[in-house]
Amino acid sequence: MSRNEPFESVPMANDHPDQAISLSQALMAPRIVIEDTQPALDGGGFAVKAISGLPVAVSSKVYSDGHDRLAVMLNWRQADSRRWHCVPMHSPGNDLWLAEFTPTGLGPHLFSIEAWIDPFATYCQDLEKKFHAGVEVKLELEEGRLLLGKGAERSEGELREQIKALQAQLPALSQADQVALLLGAQASRLMTEAEHRSYLTCSPEFPVDVDRPAAQFASWYELFPRSITDSPERHGTFNDVHERLPMIRDMGFDVLYFPPIHPIGKQHRKGRNNALQAEPNDPGSPYAIGSPEGGHDAIHPQLGTREDFRRLVAAAAEHGLEIALDFAIQCSQDHPWLKQHPGWFSWRPDGTIRYAENPPKKYQDIVNVDFYAADAVPSLWLALRDVVVGWVEEGVRTFRVDNPHTKPLPFWQWLIANVRSQYPDVIFLAEAFTKPAMMARLGKVGYAQSYTYFTWRNTKQELREYFEQLNQPPWSLCYRPNFFVNTPDINPFFLHTSGRAGFLIRAALATMGSGLWGMYSGFELCEGTPLPGKEEYLDSEKYEIRPRDFTQPGNIIAEIAQLNRIRRQNRALQTHLGVAFFNCWNDNILYFAKRTPERDNYILIAVSLDPHNAQEASFELPLWELGLDDDADTLGEDLMNGHRWTWHGKTQWMRIEPWHQPFGIWRIEKAR
Amino acid sequence: MSRNEPFESVPMANDHPDQAISLSQALMAPRIVIEDTQPALDGGGFAVKAISGLPVAVSSKVYSDGHDRLAVMLNWRQADSRRWHCVPMHSPGNDLWLAEFTPTGLGPHLFSIEAWIDPFATYCQDLEKKFHAGVEVKLELEEGRLLLGKGAERSEGELREQIKALQAQLPALSQADQVALLLGAQASRLMTEAEHRSYLTCSPEFPVDVDRPAAQFASWYELFPRSITDSPERHGTFNDVHERLPMIRDMGFDVLYFPPIHPIGKQHRKGRNNALQAEPNDPGSPYAIGSPEGGHDAIHPQLGTREDFRRLVAAAAEHGLEIALDFAIQCSQDHPWLKQHPGWFSWRPDGTIRYAENPPKKYQDIVNVDFYAADAVPSLWLALRDVVVGWVEEGVRTFRVDNPHTKPLPFWQWLIANVRSQYPDVIFLAEAFTKPAMMARLGKVGYAQSYTYFTWRNTKQELREYFEQLNQPPWSLCYRPNFFVNTPDINPFFLHTSGRAGFLIRAALATMGSGLWGMYSGFELCEGTPLPGKEEYLDSEKYEIRPRDFTQPGNIIAEIAQLNRIRRQNRALQTHLGVAFFNCWNDNILYFAKRTPERDNYILIAVSLDPHNAQEASFELPLWELGLDDDADTLGEDLMNGHRWTWHGKTQWMRIEPWHQPFGIWRIEKAR
Repeated sequence: MSRNEPFESVPMANDHPDQAISLSQALMAPRIVIEDTQPALDGGGFAVKAISGLPVAVSSKVYSDGHDRLAVMLNWRQADSRRWHCVPMHSPGNDLWLAEFTPTGLGPHLFSIEAWIDPFATYCQDLEKKFHAGVEVKLELEEGRLLLGKGAERSEGELREQIKALQAQLPALSQADQVALLLGAQASRLMTEAEHRSYLTCSPEFPVDVDRPAAQFASWYELFPRSITDSPERHGTFNDVHERLPMIRDMGFDVLYFPPIHPIGKQHRKGRNNALQAEPNDPGSPYAIGSPEGGHDAIHPQLGTREDFRRLVAAAAEHGLEIALDFAIQCSQDHPWLKQHPGWFSWRPDGTIRYAENPPKKYQDIVNVDFYAADAVPSLWLALRDVVVGWVEEGVRTFRVDNPHTKPLPFWQWLIANVRSQYPDVIFLAEAFTKPAMMARLGKVGYAQSYTYFTWRNTKQELREYFEQLNQPPWSLCYRPNFFVNTPDINPFFLHTSGRAGFLIRAALATMGSGLWGMYSGFELCEGTPLPGKEEYLDSEKYEIRPRDFTQPGNIIAEIAQLNRIRRQNRALQTHLGVAFFNCWNDNILYFAKRTPERDNYILIAVSLDPHNAQEASFELPLWELGLDDDADTLGEDLMNGHRWTWHGKTQWMRIEPWHQPFGIWRIEKAR
Repeated sequence: MSRNEPFESVPMANDHPDQAISLSQALMAPRIVIEDTQPALDGGGFAVKAISGLPVAVSSKVYSDGHDRLAVMLNWRQADSRRWHCVPMHSPGNDLWLAEFTPTGLGPHLFSIEAWIDPFATYCQDLEKKFHAGVEVKLELEEGRLLLGKGAERSEGELREQIKALQAQLPALSQADQVALLLGAQASRLMTEAEHRSYLTCSPEFPVDVDRPAAQFASWYELFPRSITDSPERHGTFNDVHERLPMIRDMGFDVLYFPPIHPIGKQHRKGRNNALQAEPNDPGSPYAIGSPEGGHDAIHPQLGTREDFRRLVAAAAEHGLEIALDFAIQCSQDHPWLKQHPGWFSWRPDGTIRYAENPPKKYQDIVNVDFYAADAVPSLWLALRDVVVGWVEEGVRTFRVDNPHTKPLPFWQWLIANVRSQYPDVIFLAEAFTKPAMMARLGKVGYAQSYTYFTWRNTKQELREYFEQLNQPPWSLCYRPNFFVNTPDINPFFLHTSGRAGFLIRAALATMGSGLWGMYSGFELCEGTPLPGKEEYLDSEKYEIRPRDFTQPGNIIAEIAQLNRIRRQNRALQTHLGVAFFNCWNDNILYFAKRTPERDNYILIAVSLDPHNAQEASFELPLWELGLDDDADTLGEDLMNGHRWTWHGKTQWMRIEPWHQPFGIWRIEKAR
């Protein structure tokens, strides 16, 4: 085995956790170390998330014993293609190597790192040092001539001839000219082409899951179609929703999300305010899915027909809006599956069905499927997949999934990969509110977006810690937060008493904090009346029809529209990543920046967390991040009203009056 | 497949980096997640370090979908044994599970985590909630009776009879008594024994490498045996070293380390102060290994015989001292291997041998072996292993390895594992001064200890950052720092002008900062005369014989002895781990704590970094770490002089006068 022979790439240690590596294993083990490759989740066990058209920055620590020169290559490909793209990596020092690639397709991708010792580059590095130090290099020049010869041997055709011609020039030249020739660009280019790759080593392949841009940047609006009506007595329909589309789009939303649209069960139907007994005209909770009229693949007759649904999807698309559906796996006791597939459910010793519980709480109107029941494997799994694919085939590309953390993770990993293998543009949003590990894991197994703890983060300290956590691995790699300011289930305590300013505060935090935010209708009207003492809405729309007057005074429609407009115009705001916090000496003001990696779009955001009183603070402009001195001038622009000014120096002053506007959003750039 | 059947443990994602998991894979994938298991290096690719007799704290995130009760077990074993030890893990919340184990053997160990859903515990949890909420539980009690029946079915012999007997009691009891029986300790114990382990899942195995305590806690003293003489004209011998043993032991050292003891080459021998030409009587550098009298397995004749060496090893052991040898792979041009194995070396086009270089620097007195030369694989690797094993068989158990970062990593991984598979008490210390990634990697591939950057960390900020880094993963798991205050190659700039106080400062930092520290002789005499402008010693002992008077005034022998005594008496000081920094408002005073995980040995250390001026500071006692209020009383003891006092409250004052003693070492404990 000679020094110049490339070795097979054999993992050095991972396969030998008992450390007893044999001599033959050691001799075949890679001499070059490739480690700490990023981005990677759980050592490559799960795909990191990426967005089509946006660069993926790759880094790795690559080194070897001794002082030989390394060459390092980033290879990447779409998983279903065998064609690798190769990007040379460069090193800023300390064994770190960097490169980036920009996927343009969707779905699974792979990348890996390849490294080798470059003997000719090593030779040139040493020759240069010795020659410049005035050391005698006669023998080194002869070694160079021999290296060229080896390069020629390894090549064919014209390349071989060119290297040989170069080699043939050497003997007639002076020492200085020989050095110049060997260190010259032509020799370097030819010898690189001759691909003398000693000790070639390859990292494992690391998976990347590429989504379309809407997975990272989208504004969601949630409504109950049945409430698009002029009277609680008349059930709204898909056809009624058409008239709402322009207004929703004018507010700047991209996604229009409906709670389940399927037939609603009658047995144990819930009445208004979650009453155990429904009145005859109560519409029931749309989450009690299934009736004799059909299950998860059917449409609630009072909403319209399948044709009505298709027309609405098309009309929404014309307005630039995408319809998102709810995927809630539970069934009402009237769901056809209970009779068709009794083996998918759990039954009790007395022959009754086991309804959903969170002891001692009981949910009598719904029953859960049993994913591992003998009769459910695999028919239930396939049936649920078919439900999703059925709606995909109706033009739906985004699903909000109800309580995914109470269903098996392997089920989600399979279902999402399976659906996306056919329809890679499908986006799943996980509605999980549970412990952090599960929240992250749902992202790892395939969820493109996730509900968050944002709704319960109110103080400066809480918000800062949460924003920063989401910007750090592993969260930054697997978890795209969709900041909902409210949902039909969550009427945040803060909004019960905050008044209009509080709604603006939460809207500003959500729209500026993440590329993904969501609003459930009524928020723009500052609705916040709770069930006393609870984080729930009084007269919840989950159990009744709630028509609204969207022109009522005091609404914040214009502000929401402007916030969404600012998001569209500023790339830094189209993701939750790129956040940074700077000094602002007032605990009631959250002050942070969102900026692109290139710093060419730099937004400063100050939000007063006090909806009742004016707040003032000194704060620092992050001039050092713009490459400026502490006394430099910068241009500021208020993105809410278009005002422009020049800031002098680093330390500035702000005053926020919540009765005018409880936040400021400023673009900063170098003064020209 | 029923809910209660345990699944095979199939990795869910690691084997499928292209994400396309099939339905059958998903159905066999573990329902329970075991992730983020600690301690682990590179996902279990390398062993984490542990010490025989000290506990290894294991943690893991374990969770599943839904609300079922999990049981989690830590399993561990010595790698060459098939017998697993099992430790139940407990959870403090948020899906974290904890346990610890204490290895008593040496060498490779493995641990893994096993988790399952416990259906009976889940049942009990729900029954208890419902019963206490006053919910009707008739049906639940019948379900409990059936569960006991399943437990009996799964059991044999007496266990089966006991469960059946329990079950038979139920019908005659009141509801409340049935609940009490089902929730009782006996039912829980029997059903746990019946081992109803649903969805059993096992983590990968994680390797742990266990060393003897001296790998983490030892004080090293380095000397050149040839200098143990009364005159530079007379070469010191092993026999001369005997007389130094009591004094070295009285200073509190455990390891006596010699630079290479092998025959020294004559060709290109270096003269005094690294002169290219040696004078006839110059002894040469011991790092130029090999002469006609032998190579790495031979003893330099002027030091004595093999029998003399054996007697010295035995005498040292009687004094509680262990001899450490230097393993330096380079050869002088007189080394027998050059003739016996020319194929182990690189030869140049003119037929000369390639000597060691770091262009443009040349090391004419040594040549390096070529590990991957055609003739060197595997004979060179085996010969080097045999050199080490040969000295091990002479009673040497500790090796300081010269420049390991310039030799292939797979070579070290194999050599260390190979030697330790026979002699698991052998300790290797890596003398690498290179970039951080390689420093850590040498620990990962098997080095028990490492030289460090300590020698070049002088300011408060530098020292704090470095101590903290070494306490964080991955460093804390793979890298045991041996803080050398000086070496024959490193005469730190700080000591050139610091005077005696500076030597005490560095000794205090080293002895308190790490369980491992080292000193090269002369330090205790405050020797620091440099080659002008260089970090090297004038008249370096590497090239000449340097007798010393160890009784000369101004020495710091008493202080070193006391520092080592304090280390022996305080467990918190027997490792580099367990460091914490607290407020001390003076940038010239490094103030930190070393404490055991149980906080039962709590040492505060304040070192002035200014050897010339008195320094004063307010500082904080970490009362909160002792569970005390800010105004509590604590007992302090000055470990250098035995004084004791009571501290009142958190904020204290110190004054350090370098001409007395430039540091303070105080044990703190709660006032009784």
